Amino acid sequence: MMANRNFRELIEAQWDNKKFLCVGLDSELEKIPSSVRTGNAGKTILTFNRALVDATHDLVGAYKLNSAFYEAHGDGRFTALQETVRYIQEVAPDVPVILDAKRADIGNTNAGYVESIFEYLGADAVTVHPYMGGESLQPFLNRSDKGIFILCRTSNPGAGEFQDLKVDGEELYKIVARHVVENWNTKGNCGLVVGATYPEELREVRKVAGDLPILIPGVGAQKGNLAKCIVAGKDARGRSIIIAVARAIIFASSGKDFAQAARESAQAFDSAIRKIL
Amino acid sequence: MMANRNFRELIEAQWDNKKFLCVGLDSELEKIPSSVRTGNAGKTILTFNRALVDATHDLVGAYKLNSAFYEAHGDGRFTALQETVRYIQEVAPDVPVILDAKRADIGNTNAGYVESIFEYLGADAVTVHPYMGGESLQPFLNRSDKGIFILCRTSNPGAGEFQDLKVDGEELYKIVARHVVENWNTKGNCGLVVGATYPEELREVRKVAGDLPILIPGVGAQKGNLAKCIVAGKDARGRSIIIAVARAIIFASSGKDFAQAARESAQAFDSAIRKIL
Repeated sequence: MMANRNFRELIEAQWDNKKFLCVGLDSELEKIPSSVRTGNAGKTILTFNRALVDATHDLVGAYKLNSAFYEAHGDGRFTALQETVRYIQEVAPDVPVILDAKRADIGNTNAGYVESIFEYLGADAVTVHPYMGGESLQPFLNRSDKGIFILCRTSNPGAGEFQDLKVDGEELYKIVARHVVENWNTKGNCGLVVGATYPEELREVRKVAGDLPILIPGVGAQKGNLAKCIVAGKDARGRSIIIAVARAIIFASSGKDFAQAARESAQAFDSAIRKIL
Repeated sequence: MMANRNFRELIEAQWDNKKFLCVGLDSELEKIPSSVRTGNAGKTILTFNRALVDATHDLVGAYKLNSAFYEAHGDGRFTALQETVRYIQEVAPDVPVILDAKRADIGNTNAGYVESIFEYLGADAVTVHPYMGGESLQPFLNRSDKGIFILCRTSNPGAGEFQDLKVDGEELYKIVARHVVENWNTKGNCGLVVGATYPEELREVRKVAGDLPILIPGVGAQKGNLAKCIVAGKDARGRSIIIAVARAIIFASSGKDFAQAARESAQAFDSAIRKIL
């Protein structure tokens, strides 16, 4: 594996180069263009992902892979996840890989996830649920070389059911952000996840988050407003945001030109982000 | 796969037979007795699990497998998970299998987890995080044939960091329980997870939970008090509890007699539970 990779250093170097776009390789089998399909799901997904990485890696600040699209179905999907991470680190060693796994268990049990995600798969960062508290997440939080993104205000329509409940006048998602900043980030490896679909909440999170990286999904298919979320999400240095776009890039075309179409879509997002910043 | 299996029917039938003990097959490789070790992790775990199932299946109401102990490490662990579920359903078709995966993503993404956990692995029930809200969990909640256990008050020492925060005078974990009972359980397939390490909180949850099944981990190695949690957790019918014990049963002996020791430990827990009830 790569020696001395450090997520925060990798992502800061990307920001130095004004790269804030993160392509989400949410490679749902049924949506993959017929031109790359083979009889094997894992091979189909891997072929699709490699073409997307080839077409976009010079434009992006990070890749994000959502583990739900790679969960075992007995057809090689999980191997495709592993091979995709390896391929990215081979052709684009400067681009960090975030595994969007949304894990969290009790302390001794999380160790199994940590080993699989960081050692076996070789991901540079992971997403985790906050509900069980920081004590349970220590096996993740102890990894100073990795990025640990805690779900804060998620992008889904029903996110507010618990996240917006007020505790002593302050919404739960803000309390989560505050705990992460004040107590969980002792190794400087924490980040937060806030949906682009909630720019006002994103602004509130940035107020307490200092220069913590914020991973922002929800632009594109989920209709989050790019300009609003950049203005609301950037830190005092004009950085510390990772804008994740999946479907609007990877499924930009269902034809043989899918990779070129993905590149053009990524270029358009990258240009728009630079213009807004 | 099994036709017409329904989690709630399976578990009610187990309760009819006074079976409330759930053995947690948290088969951490490093703790497995040397007598069953082979050069392959997956084969070692599967051999260990089969011996435990053979030794305990007539005593238990359910099995629980925590996915963290089976995450891919490239050595057959995930296959061991799948083969263990199949083996349980073969030798003990009346015993439901709970996959303790603690998953939760946005709606369209959860579909991938649902397919892998219920169709590919064939589990009868799953555990999920509540933080993203009921809207996001619809792909799980729509499965009327499966059991969906929502994390409510978890067993870990730091569980209260967010779960005990008060919203209008009521703790968050109670609000989660209330939302599940009032809004999420439309198909009668929901349950809650409450740690045995917090009997007072368990009593509070039962007050609002009606006859919802409560999965109760934390007895044994985590030192939860069995009598207190049964008294606090049972419903008006004297049932609807699933007492999960892992390490204190499966690692009762590190010698060649591990399966017999596991059986004796399971018998002791089963007897104690019946006596208390």
